[in-house]
Amino acid sequence: MRKEFISFKDKISKLKIGSTVKYNPIQVGNHTIDSDSFTLVAGPCAVESYEQLKITAEKVKQRGAHILRAGAYKPRTSPYAFQGLGMKGLSILHQVKNELQIPIITELLDSRDLPFVAEVADIIQIGSRNMQNFSLLKSLGHIHQPILLKRGVSATLEEFLLAAEYILDAGNEKVILCERGIRSYDSVTRNLLDLSAVAILKQVTHLPVFVDPSHATGIPEIIAPMSIAAKSAGANGIMIEIHPSPEEALSDGDQALNFESFDDLISSLGLCA
Amino acid sequence: MRKEFISFKDKISKLKIGSTVKYNPIQVGNHTIDSDSFTLVAGPCAVESYEQLKITAEKVKQRGAHILRAGAYKPRTSPYAFQGLGMKGLSILHQVKNELQIPIITELLDSRDLPFVAEVADIIQIGSRNMQNFSLLKSLGHIHQPILLKRGVSATLEEFLLAAEYILDAGNEKVILCERGIRSYDSVTRNLLDLSAVAILKQVTHLPVFVDPSHATGIPEIIAPMSIAAKSAGANGIMIEIHPSPEEALSDGDQALNFESFDDLISSLGLCA
Amino acid sequence: MRKEFISFKDKISKLKIGSTVKYNPIQVGNHTIDSDSFTLVAGPCAVESYEQLKITAEKVKQRGAHILRAGAYKPRTSPYAFQGLGMKGLSILHQVKNELQIPIITELLDSRDLPFVAEVADIIQIGSRNMQNFSLLKSLGHIHQPILLKRGVSATLEEFLLAAEYILDAGNEKVILCERGIRSYDSVTRNLLDLSAVAILKQVTHLPVFVDPSHATGIPEIIAPMSIAAKSAGANGIMIEIHPSPEEALSDGDQALNFESFDDLISSLGLCA
Amino acid sequence: MRKEFISFKDKISKLKIGSTVKYNPIQVGNHTIDSDSFTLVAGPCAVESYEQLKITAEKVKQRGAHILRAGAYKPRTSPYAFQGLGMKGLSILHQVKNELQIPIITELLDSRDLPFVAEVADIIQIGSRNMQNFSLLKSLGHIHQPILLKRGVSATLEEFLLAAEYILDAGNEKVILCERGIRSYDSVTRNLLDLSAVAILKQVTHLPVFVDPSHATGIPEIIAPMSIAAKSAGANGIMIEIHPSPEEALSDGDQALNFESFDDLISSLGLCA
Repeated sequence: MRKEFISFKDKISKLKIGSTVKYNPIQVGNHTIDSDSFTLVAGPCAVESYEQLKITAEKVKQRGAHILRAGAYKPRTSPYAFQGLGMKGLSILHQVKNELQIPIITELLDSRDLPFVAEVADIIQIGSRNMQNFSLLKSLGHIHQPILLKRGVSATLEEFLLAAEYILDAGNEKVILCERGIRSYDSVTRNLLDLSAVAILKQVTHLPVFVDPSHATGIPEIIAPMSIAAKSAGANGIMIEIHPSPEEALSDGDQALNFESFDDLISSLGLCA
Repeated sequence: MRKEFISFKDKISKLKIGSTVKYNPIQVGNHTIDSDSFTLVAGPCAVESYEQLKITAEKVKQRGAHILRAGAYKPRTSPYAFQGLGMKGLSILHQVKNELQIPIITELLDSRDLPFVAEVADIIQIGSRNMQNFSLLKSLGHIHQPILLKRGVSATLEEFLLAAEYILDAGNEKVILCERGIRSYDSVTRNLLDLSAVAILKQVTHLPVFVDPSHATGIPEIIAPMSIAAKSAGANGIMIEIHPSPEEALSDGDQALNFESFDDLISSLGLCA
Repeated sequence: MRKEFISFKDKISKLKIGSTVKYNPIQVGNHTIDSDSFTLVAGPCAVESYEQLKITAEKVKQRGAHILRAGAYKPRTSPYAFQGLGMKGLSILHQVKNELQIPIITELLDSRDLPFVAEVADIIQIGSRNMQNFSLLKSLGHIHQPILLKRGVSATLEEFLLAAEYILDAGNEKVILCERGIRSYDSVTRNLLDLSAVAILKQVTHLPVFVDPSHATGIPEIIAPMSIAAKSAGANGIMIEIHPSPEEALSDGDQALNFESFDDLISSLGLCA
Repeated sequence: MRKEFISFKDKISKLKIGSTVKYNPIQVGNHTIDSDSFTLVAGPCAVESYEQLKITAEKVKQRGAHILRAGAYKPRTSPYAFQGLGMKGLSILHQVKNELQIPIITELLDSRDLPFVAEVADIIQIGSRNMQNFSLLKSLGHIHQPILLKRGVSATLEEFLLAAEYILDAGNEKVILCERGIRSYDSVTRNLLDLSAVAILKQVTHLPVFVDPSHATGIPEIIAPMSIAAKSAGANGIMIEIHPSPEEALSDGDQALNFESFDDLISSLGLCA
């Protein structure tokens, strides 16, 4: 056995995230997320308007996906890029959630926004850029919502799990880990999807593990095979970016599936409603 | 669509490896390798003795794997590590091949050994360290055996396909591409298995694509899920390292499956004979 | 000319950070930091006690270094590692600063601590883990202190400069860029010091560029040559970790220089007071 | 002290390359290469014609550089790129060497060409793609010429030194190590120049260490500062690509210095003849 893997397993087994006691399953609406179930999350990168979100959410619900994803606060590399609709985006999320009775996952960038985000989000997302924003992680200890924690763009698995440990140690055991691609040297893909991370995380923790093949690859043509591969590697869920007209999206349109491709993906996954 | 992916597809489409004309299927014994079939290759890292190879080959054959892998010439990072049995290894391979009637894949390190390797190998392997040993690649143009070309440890997909192009351009169209993990920053795994490479290669070339999860991960515990994931991502075959007693192997014992784990893997793959 | 470099230069030239108008020099005590001067920053990783900081600060001052570095808030990979003395650390920094009349650089992790950090810091450090904590960056726009922004552990130069642009765009033009090593695959060093980044940054921006060879390499034996090399590559300053007894340090003791090695470094740099 | 560095030093100290006995200095013409001297190598990427080589060699000699570099056999990523003039290139090298009495360094790709390359080369270069072509390395044991071994594009320092050990173990102790940039994720530079590698290699081996800032960066604008930084980090020599008209070069023209920039570089280095 590989000695680096043995010492890694040993280190993790002493942490809360490595406990052999299974955490309580996470209930979202009438769907249960745990280390055995498979969850489908879909939606646009960002909330752009009531109409855009409503039509996408209807599609998401119609195809049997469990959770709607959409960002009101967007972390963007450039200060001049679209930064999300903010409070207005949250209010659109609230309206669509109530109209369609669909659970919501949305990103938190700043602990000062936590009260507002927590009012609408069923699951709060911490993005890869904030995986080691330890102040933000600590602020999540006493809320009742589950946290979806994305892996940092070049985080080791140990760093990823220790970031999750910050949240557990602060008092919130409902953490979902999400692999979303790591930095690599080949620019053909946006990031490098690390599916062995999924298989290894399943060996050392009972936390559910999701995969985001949209951000990981940036290439719509391979999202379907990589989604199936993620499930085969042991993932408990996938997050897919879809948009009614990807070419008009205000952010990440290159990688969003249109509705037809989303239909095909659902069929491939054998999850058709 | 991602512009880097578009320009990559465009570049490859102009090469022999990107031709839309399907290459002739590769016939090995009574098994056909092509861009639709799934092939299971298994065996020890290195030929260590007649007994070790024979008992492993019997297991490989019994479980329905199509091809036996084993190295007579081993490229080793240190000059003081076991370098393989050389000619003696080739002769053991020859004997076991004849006794069990099983096709053989073995590595070529030096074009001066080509006549001897070609006498026993049904498929000739070029390892990742030699992916850009262009003299060696050119020497493979006029032999009739198919070539399994492993991806260099930090090769881009373009560099990988251009290395294959060297072989096609020299006159040998029977090339199998093999993803075997790339260099990464997390030492928990030996290398980083890049399954999105498989999905992308399937988009741009008709060459069959194999995956070597043993070298890629170095962790027996995750070889089964990663093998299934490789198949889901579109791989046309996998290469697995097995050994009758991994803890006594002369090379790469850490990652070899023992026979029981190999049985489990076969069951997981749904390939049981 | 390399086309990727040309398009990078072109993109940066359109930003505030790429303006050909020279920013006002940064005055810290009676020392001026600008794109021509060379600044020496030294001190312990963390404030551990009044005695530890005082004795180190005296050494720093005696050897002619311009600024004392020490963290009161420490971003640590594990929640169970020493997290810094917090407010108590700030108050020790305040006391030592007044007693020795030496400028202070210290890290800010959370915008809620900004008023307290700003009371003692002459320069506020944003660490590599927070390089893309855009909320934190935006909060720095209206304070009068300069910001030392460390490069994220796998940030591209474009991402690094766009992070600086967030601060400039928010209204604070006094930004110092700091290269501190990037993630790599060879664990012999802690990170990989990228000195070509320094030379390139000097081509595209007037912001001063510092280098932190202590965090970058993690190896005291090579901090002196890498400091000189940093200066040769065009750096405007270096940050060095020193500790009265590195083996007893509460954080990062492995890489801290003891006082004798610091003396040698000063001699090598030709900066001896 | 960093434990990974300690165990690395310990491992190397047991090898021939780690011996504390200083190897004999390498004599090339009337210039001595050893772990204390500084050597300047310059020339075009490839021999293109007698005229191109002659005019460049005259410049190289006039500016006091010690060795002329130029490739007759070029390892190229694509089979359709210019592959070098081969035997004709060797014969041009021979002629210019005799006319100008300047030592030559040129690359060997295939051990079958060794007799011909050895006839003209004062130093034989093994390129980064062949760093782990162990057959080729072993073939260098019994020739009298020194070998310049380039670091593989993602080789760890241990792998690099073990590759050198292959040559020493085969009987040739005259090895020069050459850092030429490693693979990274930022495409602004061609590769990532790792100067900390130089400082570390100088700690563990007596072999001379050179740096190739031309291939490492691919950006003429930063070759001068990176050359000086290389010297500051402890390098014993640098290799620079120059061309009478870079925009017309048959290979790597983007990164070649023209003669004026070469003059400036020489001045910066303080090596002016």
